[in-house]
Amino acid sequence: MTRLNRPQFQQLGIIGCGLIGGSFALALKRAGLVKRVVGYSKSPSTTEVAKKLGVIDVAAESALLAVSGSDLVLVAVPVSATEATLRAIRHLVQIQPQTLFMDVGSTKADVAIAAQKVLGDLASQFVPAHPIAGKEKAGVQNADALLFQGKQVVLTPLPENSAAEVQRAAGVWAALGCKVLKMTPENHDAAYAAVSHFPHLLSFAYFQSVMRQPSGREFMELAGMSFRDFTRIAGSDPAIWRDILLANRDEVLHQSQRFRSVLDRLEHWLKEGDAGALETLLRQVSEARAKWTPAFTDPDDGTPSSHF
Amino acid sequence: MTRLNRPQFQQLGIIGCGLIGGSFALALKRAGLVKRVVGYSKSPSTTEVAKKLGVIDVAAESALLAVSGSDLVLVAVPVSATEATLRAIRHLVQIQPQTLFMDVGSTKADVAIAAQKVLGDLASQFVPAHPIAGKEKAGVQNADALLFQGKQVVLTPLPENSAAEVQRAAGVWAALGCKVLKMTPENHDAAYAAVSHFPHLLSFAYFQSVMRQPSGREFMELAGMSFRDFTRIAGSDPAIWRDILLANRDEVLHQSQRFRSVLDRLEHWLKEGDAGALETLLRQVSEARAKWTPAFTDPDDGTPSSHF
Repeated sequence: MTRLNRPQFQQLGIIGCGLIGGSFALALKRAGLVKRVVGYSKSPSTTEVAKKLGVIDVAAESALLAVSGSDLVLVAVPVSATEATLRAIRHLVQIQPQTLFMDVGSTKADVAIAAQKVLGDLASQFVPAHPIAGKEKAGVQNADALLFQGKQVVLTPLPENSAAEVQRAAGVWAALGCKVLKMTPENHDAAYAAVSHFPHLLSFAYFQSVMRQPSGREFMELAGMSFRDFTRIAGSDPAIWRDILLANRDEVLHQSQRFRSVLDRLEHWLKEGDAGALETLLRQVSEARAKWTPAFTDPDDGTPSSHF
Repeated sequence: MTRLNRPQFQQLGIIGCGLIGGSFALALKRAGLVKRVVGYSKSPSTTEVAKKLGVIDVAAESALLAVSGSDLVLVAVPVSATEATLRAIRHLVQIQPQTLFMDVGSTKADVAIAAQKVLGDLASQFVPAHPIAGKEKAGVQNADALLFQGKQVVLTPLPENSAAEVQRAAGVWAALGCKVLKMTPENHDAAYAAVSHFPHLLSFAYFQSVMRQPSGREFMELAGMSFRDFTRIAGSDPAIWRDILLANRDEVLHQSQRFRSVLDRLEHWLKEGDAGALETLLRQVSEARAKWTPAFTDPDDGTPSSHF
């Protein structure tokens, strides 16, 4: 078991040297789990910065070359690029049956479909993962060896994965200080649509509706703590959230339906002046919210995960 | 001008010895602006606690007795009780033409109507005020002499108020370290519906929709920082927010209409898979949010105003 919990790798291949990929490389180095890190990014300048910062040891000129000779590979690209990336490395997945592949996407059903479509049986080597960690400032320059410590990582194993392969993947994240959860891609997407993806959509929509109304700018100059906290996630990365919301749109739209029915009810009570019904709901929510505590807290509270 | 900025009062009468009324009393004492504080609360036990804590010097047995002999009176009751309170003290408003009356309600159009309806010409002595300050823990036991320091207070003068009377009211809050703003009751209610009241409704509605769905409880166990910040205001006081939302329902419903039209648009783009349109809006919002800063910050960031 110890061997599983403290896995050793000769070479880590990172495809996508961003905040998450870079932090993963630094974390594995810090934990002494890997001898060498080879990295590839779509933009050569990013790979260069990663090398200068010591995040990676070798800059690869292609995704395929980052995989070559690596016994651990992390695909850390935007979810919309996952399928193309898997296609680009498919050949070496076949040639390196001992290599463990993982991704870090915030949506998982789409990744499962892409993996099975592109890799087929080779998908047994690919264990989809979603580390619930990040920063509002993206980019390898913000990479942090402690980014994953004390955070949750969700594994959504494929039918092709052996129990041993899943355990091996779990061991990697556990060694970085993560709490490892396992669920189906469908349950993952439903859960995070509810507690993360949909509230991001709400916050973006709300901020836009205030910003775009006559006097909206003046109104915002009067806003304080409630507005600050309620709209913090509206400052998240547009490209990342475009991808997440589209990749998980069915679940997000399902959450929106549920939400609208509650909002309809509240508006009805306001129009009717039904103070009793209104207070009852507000009280139920207020009491439940007082009891709730976050699954994890960020070490630096100021910059919570922009992926979550 | 100095006299206006550092007003002196013989006796402060507090009607409603809660967090706000109690903090106002402590703040005036601390600033040395008042010699004696007389307090009344609907529940005698509350008044007793206020006296024990030294928030008030004398416990009055009625609102009228709290006004009697006071040259400054603060009506610090829930907005739904403002009209009845003014009715109860009307007689002494007439007899004490030098007394300055203020309230602290989070909605202002309803207060203006109640004042004119109940006080008529006597409304000249009543300057409606909304200090943007509070704590999530209500009650006189949480009263704080520094609650208003560095905060905004919005005055919404009545047509009956003389410029001198408004200036006198402004002087009191300025002496407590407040930034004093003046606007019409209508502008106040429109602005705070947009940046405070409606987001509270959204947060309550969202939390309820998650809590009440089949796997909602399990989902919430996975939630982290985004959920925490987005739903913080869903933990606010149900009675206070029932009153605020009902008192300002027209503006709140107006904000909801604007919000729904943006949400409709976003949902349409999700259904259509229109990544470009989606990203454009997300980017506009994200950039605008990054530029925004709060009008004020609470000294203890953990317990922002539940009235705002």
